[in-house]
Amino acid sequence: MNNSVKWYEKEGPVREEVVSTRVRLARNLRQYPFSCRATAQQKAEIEEKVKSALLSGNSILSREFRFVPLEDLNEIQSMSLVERHVVSPEFIADPRGKAVLVNEDESVSIMINEEDHLRIQVMGSGLTLKETAETADRLDTLLGETLDFAFDPQLGYLTQCPTNLGIGMRASVMLHLPALTATGAMNRLFASLSKLGMALRGSYGEGSKVVGDMYQLSNQITLGLSEAEALANLSSISDQIIEQERKARQQLLSGLSAQDKVFRAAGVLKSARLLSSEECMELLSLVRLGLTGGLLHGLDFAALNSLCVKLQPNTLSANSNVPLDEAARDTLRATVVRSALETIKE
Amino acid sequence: MNNSVKWYEKEGPVREEVVSTRVRLARNLRQYPFSCRATAQQKAEIEEKVKSALLSGNSILSREFRFVPLEDLNEIQSMSLVERHVVSPEFIADPRGKAVLVNEDESVSIMINEEDHLRIQVMGSGLTLKETAETADRLDTLLGETLDFAFDPQLGYLTQCPTNLGIGMRASVMLHLPALTATGAMNRLFASLSKLGMALRGSYGEGSKVVGDMYQLSNQITLGLSEAEALANLSSISDQIIEQERKARQQLLSGLSAQDKVFRAAGVLKSARLLSSEECMELLSLVRLGLTGGLLHGLDFAALNSLCVKLQPNTLSANSNVPLDEAARDTLRATVVRSALETIKE
Repeated sequence: MNNSVKWYEKEGPVREEVVSTRVRLARNLRQYPFSCRATAQQKAEIEEKVKSALLSGNSILSREFRFVPLEDLNEIQSMSLVERHVVSPEFIADPRGKAVLVNEDESVSIMINEEDHLRIQVMGSGLTLKETAETADRLDTLLGETLDFAFDPQLGYLTQCPTNLGIGMRASVMLHLPALTATGAMNRLFASLSKLGMALRGSYGEGSKVVGDMYQLSNQITLGLSEAEALANLSSISDQIIEQERKARQQLLSGLSAQDKVFRAAGVLKSARLLSSEECMELLSLVRLGLTGGLLHGLDFAALNSLCVKLQPNTLSANSNVPLDEAARDTLRATVVRSALETIKE
Repeated sequence: MNNSVKWYEKEGPVREEVVSTRVRLARNLRQYPFSCRATAQQKAEIEEKVKSALLSGNSILSREFRFVPLEDLNEIQSMSLVERHVVSPEFIADPRGKAVLVNEDESVSIMINEEDHLRIQVMGSGLTLKETAETADRLDTLLGETLDFAFDPQLGYLTQCPTNLGIGMRASVMLHLPALTATGAMNRLFASLSKLGMALRGSYGEGSKVVGDMYQLSNQITLGLSEAEALANLSSISDQIIEQERKARQQLLSGLSAQDKVFRAAGVLKSARLLSSEECMELLSLVRLGLTGGLLHGLDFAALNSLCVKLQPNTLSANSNVPLDEAARDTLRATVVRSALETIKE
């Protein structure tokens, strides 16, 4: 992790309800079996082909990428990559034959030999579906100039899991929904979204826990529609949820009980000496709500977003020069938060 | 409740561990049956006799007393008297035939027709066993000049409950024992104290709950020893407990977990918009600990003691000009605390 400003340290559009946007394309090389059946030798060849397709390309896009074989990283470094959303949790489970190409601000990464041979991923701060999809498409085109992607005229892109067949695209927005959560509206939302071909999950995708009222909304249908249609659906549904959240916040924050929770959260974060990751995220969620509702002032969303990533257990350890046990992490986390929230005011 | 400074708004000796001292004498008039058997007419006579014995006395002591028939007070005012320790909880259960004489700073009160005809009570801030006992004795002497107390040469003062027979004196110190509580030492202490003829109870005596780590230590033996001996025993045992508490605090506050709790407590009290009485007392206990341990600064014990009384539910209501429901009290309590703790610093 170098010191340049990362994508998550910036502010994006609709930042009060949308933390980030992600577009991910699944691609496979026609002449190789899917990753699960590929030999070590074949995986090495795939790695080499993808790497050179990107790094030897003529596009300015390719200049700023680092090639990182997963086996070169220790466990803390790998887990920090997951916390920063550069790679998926599944990707690091077995590092053999896996590598990632990642650009300087970490907004673009290409996982090699994940479930599919390539997972092209583009992230952006706030709600930026159009821009992130365009960047992903440009990378797809660039790589497609050299690589022969498995594509069927009938089915579209071929992927290891049939749920990705077709456009091979999964787009998602990370929504901050404290008010819909507090008012108990989420269960209804979960049910209705699955009927619309959308999924709502925890911050780290499938099977992950919802922490700090952060929900990942993503498209589930990839077959029988175009990328543009899938993006339009996601955009329209996320707009509706954002609208509901805005109304719920107005209602919620007019009550003393929610105000009390927001002010207490800031009070605790400004004074605690020990903070677990989960408690910290729950309290920062209330602070985020307080900032959007005008109860709190003096901290911008860029700083808040950056904090939410840097305070993750492994990223905290990776950025420190000494190994940290849980108690040491909780202490360091509290120190970092106190300093970051010094400027916050009622 | 008038506006003069009350005894509990002052600082006393050994204030870091002892909030207050109380000495209470039980006396009965020889020519009347005990309160539980006295008729309304007899109770009225007792009231009149005690009142005139005090108020028509020549002592300067008698000048500043108010005579308050319990039936003149509404429920909130009566319950506030209990919260301020002017009367016992039992005293207000049935107001008929009861009255209290109370001086301006509320350090001296005489309950009339409680369990005994007279309960002379003197309170002081901090550890002041000698001074409070002297004041109680002076009052006893003054009243004894006019009133004929039931006294048996063999048994001493006669009281309705045999546990008060003899000297009829109950002395107590209100100890703040957060460290002995946190380290789990209290159970051992409870057991050993009862063997020594001492009782350790919640803030409001027998059957009351321990809130905010406040314990009332009192002598249980009144028969077969002099007042001076009883006071010396209590003093010696409270000194030992204070010493144990001091050691436990040093140990406790050297740990990050206790420091975290102290700083969080101050953070919450400085920011909350809703505070229940019990949560408030628990958090103020931690703030008190933080002030004694040098973690917190900028609030004196006089202000803290005053706050602990004024924030009690009925005293809060009694001091307010409008009737308050629980939510309104919790809001007002939070506002009062925020303002009082504005000066507090790490």
